[in-house]
Amino acid sequence: MFASVEERTNPHAYRRISRDGAEDFVAVEEPLEIRVDGKPLAVTMRTPGHDEELALGFLYGEALIDGPREAGPDPELSANVVEVEGPLLSDPGERRFYTSSSCGVCGKGAIEEVAVRSKPIPDGPVVGRATLAELPERLRQPAFEATGGLHATGLFDPAGELVCAREDVGRHNAMDKVVGWALRAGALPLHGRILCVSGRLSFELAQKAAVAGCPILVGVGAPSSLAIELAAERGLTLCGFARGGTMNVYAGTTRVSPSA
Amino acid sequence: MFASVEERTNPHAYRRISRDGAEDFVAVEEPLEIRVDGKPLAVTMRTPGHDEELALGFLYGEALIDGPREAGPDPELSANVVEVEGPLLSDPGERRFYTSSSCGVCGKGAIEEVAVRSKPIPDGPVVGRATLAELPERLRQPAFEATGGLHATGLFDPAGELVCAREDVGRHNAMDKVVGWALRAGALPLHGRILCVSGRLSFELAQKAAVAGCPILVGVGAPSSLAIELAAERGLTLCGFARGGTMNVYAGTTRVSPSA
Repeated sequence: MFASVEERTNPHAYRRISRDGAEDFVAVEEPLEIRVDGKPLAVTMRTPGHDEELALGFLYGEALIDGPREAGPDPELSANVVEVEGPLLSDPGERRFYTSSSCGVCGKGAIEEVAVRSKPIPDGPVVGRATLAELPERLRQPAFEATGGLHATGLFDPAGELVCAREDVGRHNAMDKVVGWALRAGALPLHGRILCVSGRLSFELAQKAAVAGCPILVGVGAPSSLAIELAAERGLTLCGFARGGTMNVYAGTTRVSPSA
Repeated sequence: MFASVEERTNPHAYRRISRDGAEDFVAVEEPLEIRVDGKPLAVTMRTPGHDEELALGFLYGEALIDGPREAGPDPELSANVVEVEGPLLSDPGERRFYTSSSCGVCGKGAIEEVAVRSKPIPDGPVVGRATLAELPERLRQPAFEATGGLHATGLFDPAGELVCAREDVGRHNAMDKVVGWALRAGALPLHGRILCVSGRLSFELAQKAAVAGCPILVGVGAPSSLAIELAAERGLTLCGFARGGTMNVYAGTTRVSPSA
């Protein structure tokens, strides 16, 4: 399905600065407004580049679109606005995470909301523990190496080959960009694929992986309690602390085989 | 002004889980809804504990309150709702970061918006480089040490003594909790103080420090381009990569003296 790894270099990701008389590189952060049919929907602080993918991946993760849409810069505005063609699948009203009117906002409600917006994930693939633990090494981060200031998300096949990678100052943006890329490539849902992130495994990242239909999510950092609960509930394999060839499996152990 | 370091232990911050037949600890993440006069304003994914401080610090950072307010759980709802007494200083409408109607959303607009909601920061204090570089070591993180999954923010005096520290799965929440604590303690603005964060220095964290009037912000990780621009514009001292006794200064060098 994927002919080649997407172009990794993003010339907008970092900027040369002068510091203490020497030169240094820092990750670029700028606001981006996502508009649908001319109407402002959200503002996110992101690293410029792949803005259309970011907007589409964000809308897909929020279950506001279920297929590719036209997206591009607004020709009448000079910067940092991406315009997406509607209509949306539902009204993007504020989410609440309620389970019933007598109950407060809760994690159970948040997980139930993900269930509404995502389809069941198939059983496979089964991947060797060593292959999964090695993915962060394969998620080379060109801009991170220059700045130390970017998160990355990589999409991999079960053999551990990198399919697409994106970097951003926001961890959720990096994953949105990968999902948006997959949406445009006709590669959703991400059945049979693996997502790997450079940081911690929050509920939000597990939610985006689940909605994209990805069966395995690997992170360099620690998972949160709610990310583990969501993974267990949705049948997602969740692996944390993937470093130096080892990792921990927090949910969905049946997709992890002992050897590589 | 500060009699003693606040109690650090938060029994809600982490949870025991069973993994691969062994016991492990993970950081707790749950949604929290912030309501003002019964009306839902925002939902954030946070680590339970110090919820009132989180709500007050968040509202202060958004320039929606300028002094302490009554805050507590909603007695009619079972969990994860904090109710704050109004009124707010302004309508919490969506922020846009526009500079003019012919311009797109931009970083300059975001910085100008911070200028509107924050007062000038006085010149001092001047602190030794070695003292600043050592702050992350002094920001002991009890729950992080158990889980590897929490961010921390610490408030320090110019001698490097810890005044208040808070942990959370969300980096912005940890800082909101510290600012909310200071609001209740009558310690705002944070003139003459130092904030230290466990992660990267985003625009959002620099913004919260600036609005709280804190002259020096230190981070273990890398700053973003927009965090540096905001710090330079607002006269904030910004130090990144504070690790192993060294650090880089990105803005406001006059508050950093060569020796300890």
